[in-house]
Amino acid sequence: MEFADGFPIWDRLTSDQQNRLHNSVVSRTVSKGTVLHNGSADCTGLFLVKSGQLRAYILSEEGREITIYRLFDRDMCLLSASCIMRSIQFEIVIGAEKDTELWVIPSGVYKEIMEESAPAANFINEIMASRFSEVMWLLEQILWRSMDRRVASFLLEEASIENGSCLHMTHEALASHLGTHREVVTRMLRYFQGEGMVKLSRGVIEIIDEEKLKALQS
Amino acid sequence: MEFADGFPIWDRLTSDQQNRLHNSVVSRTVSKGTVLHNGSADCTGLFLVKSGQLRAYILSEEGREITIYRLFDRDMCLLSASCIMRSIQFEIVIGAEKDTELWVIPSGVYKEIMEESAPAANFINEIMASRFSEVMWLLEQILWRSMDRRVASFLLEEASIENGSCLHMTHEALASHLGTHREVVTRMLRYFQGEGMVKLSRGVIEIIDEEKLKALQS
Repeated sequence: MEFADGFPIWDRLTSDQQNRLHNSVVSRTVSKGTVLHNGSADCTGLFLVKSGQLRAYILSEEGREITIYRLFDRDMCLLSASCIMRSIQFEIVIGAEKDTELWVIPSGVYKEIMEESAPAANFINEIMASRFSEVMWLLEQILWRSMDRRVASFLLEEASIENGSCLHMTHEALASHLGTHREVVTRMLRYFQGEGMVKLSRGVIEIIDEEKLKALQS
Repeated sequence: MEFADGFPIWDRLTSDQQNRLHNSVVSRTVSKGTVLHNGSADCTGLFLVKSGQLRAYILSEEGREITIYRLFDRDMCLLSASCIMRSIQFEIVIGAEKDTELWVIPSGVYKEIMEESAPAANFINEIMASRFSEVMWLLEQILWRSMDRRVASFLLEEASIENGSCLHMTHEALASHLGTHREVVTRMLRYFQGEGMVKLSRGVIEIIDEEKLKALQS
Protein backbone atom coordinates (compact mmCIF):
# COMPACT_ATOMS: atom_id res chain seq x y z
CA MET A 1 0.00 0.00 0.00
CA GLU A 2 1.23 3.48 -0.88
CA PHE A 3 0.98 6.33 1.61
CA ALA A 4 -1.40 8.17 -0.72
CA ASP A 5 -3.81 5.24 -0.49
CA GLY A 6 -3.54 4.88 3.26
CA PHE A 7 -3.94 8.52 4.19
CA PRO A 8 -7.69 9.20 4.41
CA ILE A 9 -7.81 12.81 3.24
CA TRP A 10 -5.11 12.64 0.57
CA ASP A 11 -7.49 13.69 -2.21
CA ARG A 12 -8.56 16.77 -0.28
CA LEU A 13 -5.04 18.22 -0.13
CA THR A 14 -3.45 20.45 -2.75
CA SER A 15 -0.70 18.93 -4.87
CA ASP A 16 1.82 21.09 -3.06
CA GLN A 17 0.65 19.70 0.30
CA GLN A 18 0.70 16.18 -1.11
CA ASN A 19 4.30 16.71 -2.25
CA ARG A 20 5.41 17.97 1.12
CA LEU A 21 3.87 14.94 2.83
CA HIS A 22 5.21 12.54 0.24
CA ASN A 23 8.74 13.89 0.61
CA SER A 24 8.83 13.82 4.38
CA VAL A 25 6.91 10.72 5.41
CA VAL A 26 9.05 7.85 6.68
CA SER A 27 8.13 4.20 6.56
CA ARG A 28 9.05 2.15 9.63
CA THR A 29 8.83 -1.47 10.61
CA VAL A 30 8.93 -2.26 14.30
CA SER A 31 8.75 -5.54 16.10
CA LYS A 32 6.29 -6.45 18.84
CA GLY A 33 7.20 -4.82 22.13
CA THR A 34 8.88 -1.72 20.68
CA VAL A 35 8.04 1.52 22.47
CA LEU A 36 7.45 4.04 19.71
CA HIS A 37 6.65 7.09 21.78
CA ASN A 38 7.07 8.01 25.41
CA GLY A 39 5.54 11.11 26.97
CA SER A 40 4.70 14.58 25.81
CA ALA A 41 8.29 15.81 25.59
CA ASP A 42 8.80 13.33 22.81
CA CYS A 43 7.21 14.78 19.67
CA THR A 44 7.77 11.83 17.42
CA GLY A 45 5.33 12.60 14.64
CA LEU A 46 1.94 11.32 13.51
CA PHE A 47 1.71 7.57 13.14
CA LEU A 48 -0.38 5.97 10.45
CA VAL A 49 -0.62 2.20 10.82
CA LYS A 50 -0.06 0.23 7.62
CA SER A 51 -0.46 -3.15 9.28
CA GLY A 52 -0.11 -4.50 12.79
CA GLN A 53 -1.30 -3.14 16.12
CA LEU A 54 -0.27 -0.31 18.43
CA ARG A 55 -1.41 0.40 21.97
CA ALA A 56 -1.61 3.78 23.71
CA TYR A 57 -1.44 3.66 27.48
CA ILE A 58 -0.66 5.69 30.54
CA LEU A 59 1.80 4.63 33.17
CA SER A 60 1.70 5.19 36.91
CA GLU A 61 4.76 5.91 38.99
CA GLU A 62 4.66 2.33 40.19
CA GLY A 63 4.64 1.06 36.62
CA ARG A 64 0.95 0.12 36.37
CA GLU A 65 -0.44 0.56 32.88
CA ILE A 66 -3.88 1.33 31.63
CA THR A 67 -4.84 1.05 27.99
CA ILE A 68 -6.39 4.17 26.53
CA TYR A 69 -6.93 2.93 23.02
CA ARG A 70 -5.60 0.64 20.33
CA LEU A 71 -4.67 1.37 16.73
CA PHE A 72 -5.22 -1.04 13.90
CA ASP A 73 -4.73 -0.92 10.12
CA ARG A 74 -5.18 2.60 8.71
CA ASP A 75 -5.68 4.11 12.18
CA MET A 76 -3.85 7.28 12.97
CA CYS A 77 -2.27 8.41 16.21
CA LEU A 78 -1.95 12.09 16.91
CA LEU A 79 -0.89 12.00 20.54
CA SER A 80 2.55 10.93 19.40
CA ALA A 81 2.75 14.37 17.81
CA SER A 82 1.33 16.32 20.72
CA CYS A 83 3.56 19.29 19.91
CA ILE A 84 1.34 20.09 16.93
CA MET A 85 -1.10 21.43 19.53
CA ARG A 86 0.10 23.39 22.51
CA SER A 87 -2.93 22.43 24.59
CA ILE A 88 -2.12 18.73 24.77
CA GLN A 89 -0.47 18.31 28.11
CA PHE A 90 -0.39 14.76 29.21
CA GLU A 91 1.95 11.84 28.98
CA ILE A 92 1.12 8.83 26.93
CA VAL A 93 3.15 5.82 25.87
CA ILE A 94 2.67 4.12 22.52
CA GLY A 95 3.97 0.62 21.98
CA ALA A 96 3.70 -2.05 19.33
CA GLU A 97 1.55 -5.01 20.38
CA LYS A 98 2.30 -6.86 17.19
CA ASP A 99 4.97 -6.51 14.54
CA THR A 100 3.85 -3.31 12.90
CA GLU A 101 4.47 -1.41 9.71
CA LEU A 102 3.69 2.27 9.91
CA TRP A 103 4.28 5.64 8.36
CA VAL A 104 5.59 8.49 10.45
CA ILE A 105 4.61 12.00 9.37
CA PRO A 106 6.99 14.58 10.87
CA SER A 107 5.12 16.85 13.30
CA GLY A 108 6.44 20.08 11.80
CA VAL A 109 5.29 19.18 8.30
CA TYR A 110 1.79 18.26 9.44
CA LYS A 111 1.48 21.29 11.66
CA GLU A 112 2.28 23.52 8.67
CA ILE A 113 -0.26 21.80 6.44
CA MET A 114 -2.93 21.82 9.13
CA GLU A 115 -2.53 25.57 9.57
CA GLU A 116 -3.39 26.21 5.96
CA SER A 117 -5.80 23.36 5.21
CA ALA A 118 -9.26 23.06 6.75
CA PRO A 119 -9.61 19.38 5.73
CA ALA A 120 -6.27 18.54 7.41
CA ALA A 121 -7.35 20.38 10.59
CA ASN A 122 -10.81 18.82 10.64
CA PHE A 123 -9.31 15.38 10.14
CA ILE A 124 -7.31 15.88 13.34
CA ASN A 125 -10.45 17.19 15.04
CA GLU A 126 -12.35 14.00 14.30
CA ILE A 127 -9.51 11.76 15.48
CA MET A 128 -9.12 13.73 18.68
CA ALA A 129 -12.87 13.72 19.34
CA SER A 130 -12.93 9.99 18.94
CA ARG A 131 -10.00 9.43 21.38
CA PHE A 132 -11.57 11.92 23.76
CA SER A 133 -14.76 9.87 23.69
CA GLU A 134 -12.81 6.70 24.51
CA VAL A 135 -11.26 8.38 27.52
CA MET A 136 -14.61 9.74 28.73
CA TRP A 137 -16.00 6.23 28.52
CA LEU A 138 -13.11 4.87 30.59
CA LEU A 139 -13.50 7.66 33.12
CA GLU A 140 -17.20 6.97 33.56
CA GLN A 141 -16.63 3.24 33.96
CA ILE A 142 -14.00 3.81 36.60
CA LEU A 143 -15.82 6.59 38.38
CA TRP A 144 -19.16 5.15 39.18
CA ARG A 145 -20.09 2.10 37.34
CA SER A 146 -17.14 -0.05 38.41
CA MET A 147 -18.52 -1.97 35.51
CA ASP A 148 -15.20 -3.63 34.75
CA ARG A 149 -15.18 -5.17 38.21
CA ARG A 150 -18.83 -6.16 38.04
CA VAL A 151 -18.56 -7.79 34.62
CA ALA A 152 -15.36 -9.59 35.65
CA SER A 153 -16.96 -10.90 38.85
CA PHE A 154 -20.02 -12.07 37.02
CA LEU A 155 -17.99 -13.94 34.37
CA LEU A 156 -15.84 -15.65 36.99
CA GLU A 157 -18.85 -16.65 39.03
CA GLU A 158 -20.63 -18.08 36.00
CA ALA A 159 -17.51 -19.99 34.99
CA SER A 160 -17.24 -21.52 38.42
CA ILE A 161 -20.94 -22.49 38.32
CA GLU A 162 -20.64 -23.96 34.82
CA ASN A 163 -17.33 -25.54 35.72
CA GLY A 164 -15.78 -24.43 32.42
CA SER A 165 -14.30 -21.40 30.73
CA CYS A 166 -16.84 -21.14 27.89
CA LEU A 167 -19.97 -19.28 28.84
CA HIS A 168 -22.95 -19.64 26.55
CA MET A 169 -24.64 -16.36 27.19
CA THR A 170 -25.70 -13.36 25.14
CA HIS A 171 -24.54 -9.84 25.98
CA GLU A 172 -28.21 -8.97 26.40
CA ALA A 173 -28.59 -11.59 29.15
CA LEU A 174 -25.40 -10.47 30.87
CA ALA A 175 -26.59 -6.86 30.79
CA SER A 176 -29.91 -7.78 32.26
CA HIS A 177 -28.17 -9.66 35.10
CA LEU A 178 -26.14 -6.54 35.88
CA GLY A 179 -29.03 -4.14 35.45
CA THR A 180 -27.41 -2.22 32.65
CA HIS A 181 -27.62 -1.81 28.87
CA ARG A 182 -26.39 -4.28 26.29
CA GLU A 183 -24.17 -1.63 24.69
CA VAL A 184 -22.31 -1.11 27.95
CA VAL A 185 -21.64 -4.82 28.35
CA THR A 186 -20.61 -5.30 24.72
CA ARG A 187 -18.14 -2.45 24.92
CA MET A 188 -16.68 -3.77 28.17
CA LEU A 189 -16.36 -7.30 26.77
CA ARG A 190 -14.57 -5.92 23.72
CA TYR A 191 -12.24 -4.05 26.04
CA PHE A 192 -11.58 -7.32 27.92
CA GLN A 193 -11.00 -9.06 24.60
CA GLY A 194 -8.49 -6.39 23.59
CA GLU A 195 -6.71 -6.95 26.89
CA GLY A 196 -6.56 -10.69 26.19
CA MET A 197 -8.86 -11.70 29.04
CA VAL A 198 -11.72 -13.17 27.02
CA LYS A 199 -12.42 -14.30 23.50
CA LEU A 200 -15.79 -13.47 21.98
CA SER A 201 -17.68 -15.42 19.40
CA ARG A 202 -21.32 -15.76 18.53
CA GLY A 203 -23.25 -16.49 21.72
CA VAL A 204 -20.06 -17.53 23.57
CA ILE A 205 -17.77 -15.70 25.95
CA GLU A 206 -14.60 -17.67 26.54
CA ILE A 207 -12.38 -16.81 29.50
CA ILE A 208 -8.76 -17.06 28.40
CA ASP A 209 -6.97 -15.25 31.25
CA GLU A 210 -8.67 -15.95 34.55
CA GLU A 211 -5.88 -14.39 36.61
CA LYS A 212 -6.17 -11.07 34.80
CA LEU A 213 -9.94 -11.03 35.33
CA LYS A 214 -9.45 -11.84 39.00
CA ALA A 215 -7.00 -8.96 39.33
CA LEU A 216 -9.78 -6.56 38.28
CA GLN A 217 -11.79 -7.48 41.36
CA SER A 218 -9.23 -6.28 43.86
CA MET B 1 -18.48 43.75 24.76
CA GLU B 2 -19.34 42.96 21.15
CA PHE B 3 -19.17 39.40 19.84
CA ALA B 4 -16.41 40.43 17.42
CA ASP B 5 -14.24 41.46 20.38
CA GLY B 6 -14.98 38.34 22.40
CA PHE B 7 -14.43 35.77 19.68
CA PRO B 8 -10.70 34.97 19.62
CA ILE B 9 -10.17 34.29 15.93
CA TRP B 10 -12.56 36.92 14.52
CA ASP B 11 -9.80 38.68 12.58
CA ARG B 12 -8.75 35.47 10.90
CA LEU B 13 -12.15 34.90 9.29
CA THR B 14 -13.26 36.24 5.92
CA SER B 15 -15.84 39.03 5.95
CA ASP B 16 -18.41 36.60 4.60
CA GLN B 17 -17.74 34.23 7.51
CA GLN B 18 -17.87 37.13 9.94
CA ASN B 19 -21.26 38.13 8.55
CA ARG B 20 -22.68 34.67 8.87
CA LEU B 21 -21.57 34.49 12.49
CA HIS B 22 -22.75 37.99 13.26
CA ASN B 23 -26.19 37.29 11.82
CA SER B 24 -26.72 34.00 13.62
CA VAL B 25 -25.16 34.43 17.04
CA VAL B 26 -27.63 34.82 19.90
CA SER B 27 -26.95 36.59 23.15
CA ARG B 28 -28.38 34.95 26.28
CA THR B 29 -28.53 35.78 29.94
CA VAL B 30 -29.12 32.92 32.33
CA SER B 31 -29.41 32.88 36.08
CA LYS B 32 -27.34 30.74 38.41
CA GLY B 33 -28.53 27.13 38.42
CA THR B 34 -29.80 27.07 34.84
CA VAL B 35 -28.95 23.91 32.92
CA LEU B 36 -27.85 25.08 29.49
CA HIS B 37 -27.11 21.78 27.87
CA ASN B 38 -27.87 18.18 28.67
CA GLY B 39 -26.34 15.22 26.88
CA SER B 40 -25.14 14.52 23.39
CA ALA B 41 -28.58 14.39 21.77
CA ASP B 42 -28.94 18.05 22.60
CA CYS B 43 -26.88 20.01 20.07
CA THR B 44 -27.38 23.43 21.53
CA GLY B 45 -24.57 25.33 19.86
CA LEU B 46 -21.18 26.69 20.85
CA PHE B 47 -21.15 28.77 24.01
CA LEU B 48 -18.87 31.74 24.40
CA VAL B 49 -18.94 33.18 27.92
CA LYS B 50 -19.24 36.97 28.10
CA SER B 51 -19.29 37.08 31.89
CA GLY B 52 -20.18 34.67 34.66
CA GLN B 53 -19.29 31.02 35.16
CA LEU B 54 -20.37 27.73 33.63
CA ARG B 55 -19.60 24.21 34.77
CA ALA B 56 -19.38 21.07 32.63
CA TYR B 57 -20.01 17.83 34.47
CA ILE B 58 -20.99 14.22 34.01
CA LEU B 59 -23.80 12.60 35.88
CA SER B 60 -24.11 9.05 37.16
CA GLU B 61 -27.34 7.08 37.11
CA GLU B 62 -27.65 7.75 40.83
CA GLY B 63 -27.30 11.47 40.27
CA ARG B 64 -23.69 11.88 41.43
CA GLU B 65 -21.86 14.63 39.59
CA ILE B 66 -18.25 15.12 38.74
CA THR B 67 -16.88 18.37 37.40
CA ILE B 68 -14.95 18.05 34.17
CA TYR B 69 -14.08 21.70 33.67
CA ARG B 70 -15.27 25.24 34.28
CA LEU B 71 -15.70 28.11 31.86
CA PHE B 72 -14.97 31.71 32.74
CA ASP B 73 -15.00 34.99 30.80
CA ARG B 74 -14.14 34.50 27.12
CA ASP B 75 -13.96 30.73 27.47
CA MET B 76 -15.63 28.66 24.84
CA CYS B 77 -17.52 25.41 25.17
CA LEU B 78 -17.66 23.08 22.22
CA LEU B 79 -19.15 20.00 23.85
CA SER B 80 -22.51 21.74 23.86
CA ALA B 81 -22.27 21.52 20.08
CA SER B 82 -21.08 17.95 19.89
CA CYS B 83 -22.96 17.41 16.65
CA ILE B 84 -20.35 19.48 14.81
CA MET B 85 -18.14 16.41 15.13
CA ARG B 86 -19.54 12.94 14.64
CA SER B 87 -16.87 11.34 16.82
CA ILE B 88 -17.96 12.99 20.05
CA GLN B 89 -20.01 10.38 21.78
CA PHE B 90 -20.46 11.11 25.41
CA GLU B 91 -22.96 12.86 27.59
CA ILE B 92 -22.11 16.03 29.38
CA VAL B 93 -24.21 18.53 31.30
CA ILE B 94 -23.46 22.24 31.28
CA GLY B 95 -24.94 24.45 33.94
CA ALA B 96 -24.53 28.04 35.10
CA GLU B 97 -22.74 28.36 38.44
CA LYS B 98 -23.24 32.10 38.50
CA ASP B 99 -25.54 34.45 36.65
CA THR B 100 -24.02 34.29 33.21
CA GLU B 101 -24.12 36.22 29.98
CA LEU B 102 -23.11 34.25 26.94
CA TRP B 103 -23.27 34.06 23.18
CA VAL B 104 -24.61 30.96 21.49
CA ILE B 105 -23.26 30.19 18.03
CA PRO B 106 -25.62 27.83 16.19
CA SER B 107 -23.90 24.48 15.53
CA GLY B 108 -24.83 24.37 11.84
CA VAL B 109 -23.31 27.77 11.15
CA TYR B 110 -20.04 26.96 12.90
CA LYS B 111 -19.80 23.54 11.28
CA GLU B 112 -20.07 25.16 7.86
CA ILE B 113 -17.40 27.76 8.64
CA MET B 114 -15.08 25.21 10.18
CA GLU B 115 -15.27 23.06 7.05
CA GLU B 116 -13.95 25.88 4.91
CA SER B 117 -11.67 27.72 7.35
CA ALA B 118 -8.44 26.27 8.72
CA PRO B 119 -8.25 28.88 11.52
CA ALA B 120 -11.80 28.03 12.65
CA ALA B 121 -10.99 24.30 12.62
CA ASN B 122 -7.66 24.76 14.42
CA PHE B 123 -9.34 26.91 17.05
CA ILE B 124 -11.66 24.00 17.85
CA ASN B 125 -8.65 21.69 17.85
CA GLU B 126 -6.93 23.71 20.55
CA ILE B 127 -10.04 23.92 22.72
CA MET B 128 -10.66 20.23 22.43
CA ALA B 129 -7.02 19.39 23.19
CA SER B 130 -7.20 21.49 26.29
CA ARG B 131 -10.42 19.83 27.56
CA PHE B 132 -8.97 16.45 26.67
CA SER B 133 -5.94 17.27 28.82
CA GLU B 134 -8.20 18.19 31.76
CA VAL B 135 -9.96 14.86 31.49
CA MET B 136 -6.69 12.93 31.25
CA TRP B 137 -5.55 14.68 34.41
CA LEU B 138 -8.74 13.71 36.23
CA LEU B 139 -8.45 10.14 35.00
CA GLU B 140 -4.89 9.83 36.24
CA GLN B 141 -5.76 11.29 39.62
CA ILE B 142 -8.62 8.89 40.04
CA LEU B 143 -6.83 5.88 38.65
CA TRP B 144 -3.72 5.64 40.69
CA ARG B 145 -2.76 8.65 42.59
CA SER B 146 -5.95 8.96 44.67
CA MET B 147 -4.36 12.33 45.13
CA ASP B 148 -7.68 14.01 45.86
CA ARG B 149 -8.17 11.72 48.83
CA ARG B 150 -4.61 12.12 50.00
CA VAL B 151 -4.60 15.91 49.81
CA ALA B 152 -8.00 16.07 51.52
CA SER B 153 -6.86 13.80 54.36
CA PHE B 154 -3.71 15.77 54.85
CA LEU B 155 -5.53 19.11 55.01
CA LEU B 156 -8.08 17.77 57.50
CA GLU B 157 -5.37 16.28 59.66
CA GLU B 158 -3.36 19.50 59.68
CA ALA B 159 -6.48 21.51 60.52
CA SER B 160 -7.21 19.26 63.46
CA ILE B 161 -3.58 19.58 64.64
CA GLU B 162 -3.59 23.34 64.23
CA ASN B 163 -7.07 23.54 65.68
CA GLY B 164 -8.19 25.98 63.00
CA SER B 165 -9.28 26.10 59.39
CA CYS B 166 -6.43 28.29 58.10
CA LEU B 167 -3.31 26.37 57.27
CA HIS B 168 -0.13 28.36 56.83
CA MET B 169 1.70 26.13 54.46
CA THR B 170 3.18 26.39 50.98
CA HIS B 171 2.16 24.06 48.19
CA GLU B 172 5.80 23.01 48.01
CA ALA B 173 5.70 21.85 51.64
CA LEU B 174 2.43 20.03 51.13
CA ALA B 175 3.84 18.29 48.06
CA SER B 176 6.91 17.22 49.93
CA HIS B 177 4.76 15.74 52.72
CA LEU B 178 2.86 13.71 50.14
CA GLY B 179 5.93 12.72 48.17
CA THR B 180 4.76 14.35 44.98
CA HIS B 181 5.41 17.44 42.84
CA ARG B 182 4.31 20.97 43.66
CA GLU B 183 2.45 21.24 40.33
CA VAL B 184 0.28 18.25 41.23
CA VAL B 185 -0.65 19.74 44.58
CA THR B 186 -1.30 23.21 43.17
CA ARG B 187 -3.58 21.82 40.52
CA MET B 188 -5.48 19.73 43.04
CA LEU B 189 -5.86 22.67 45.43
CA ARG B 190 -7.22 24.79 42.58
CA TYR B 191 -9.66 22.01 41.79
CA PHE B 192 -10.72 21.99 45.46
CA GLN B 193 -11.05 25.76 45.35
CA GLY B 194 -13.25 25.53 42.27
CA GLU B 195 -15.43 23.03 44.11
CA GLY B 196 -15.77 25.44 47.02
CA MET B 197 -13.85 23.29 49.50
CA VAL B 198 -10.89 25.56 50.16
CA LYS B 199 -9.87 29.15 49.56
CA LEU B 200 -6.32 29.86 48.49
CA SER B 201 -4.30 32.95 49.19
CA ARG B 202 -0.60 33.63 49.46
CA GLY B 203 0.90 31.05 51.83
CA VAL B 204 -2.51 30.14 53.26
CA ILE B 205 -4.94 27.32 52.54
CA GLU B 206 -8.28 27.95 54.20
CA ILE B 207 -10.74 25.11 54.57
CA ILE B 208 -14.22 26.42 53.89
CA ASP B 209 -16.20 23.20 53.45
CA GLU B 210 -14.93 20.53 55.82
CA GLU B 211 -17.83 18.17 55.11
CA LYS B 212 -17.13 18.14 51.39
CA LEU B 213 -13.44 17.42 52.03
CA LYS B 214 -14.37 14.61 54.41
CA ALA B 215 -16.66 13.11 51.78
CA LEU B 216 -13.63 12.68 49.50
CA GLN B 217 -12.05 10.30 51.95
CA SER B 218 -14.77 7.70 51.79
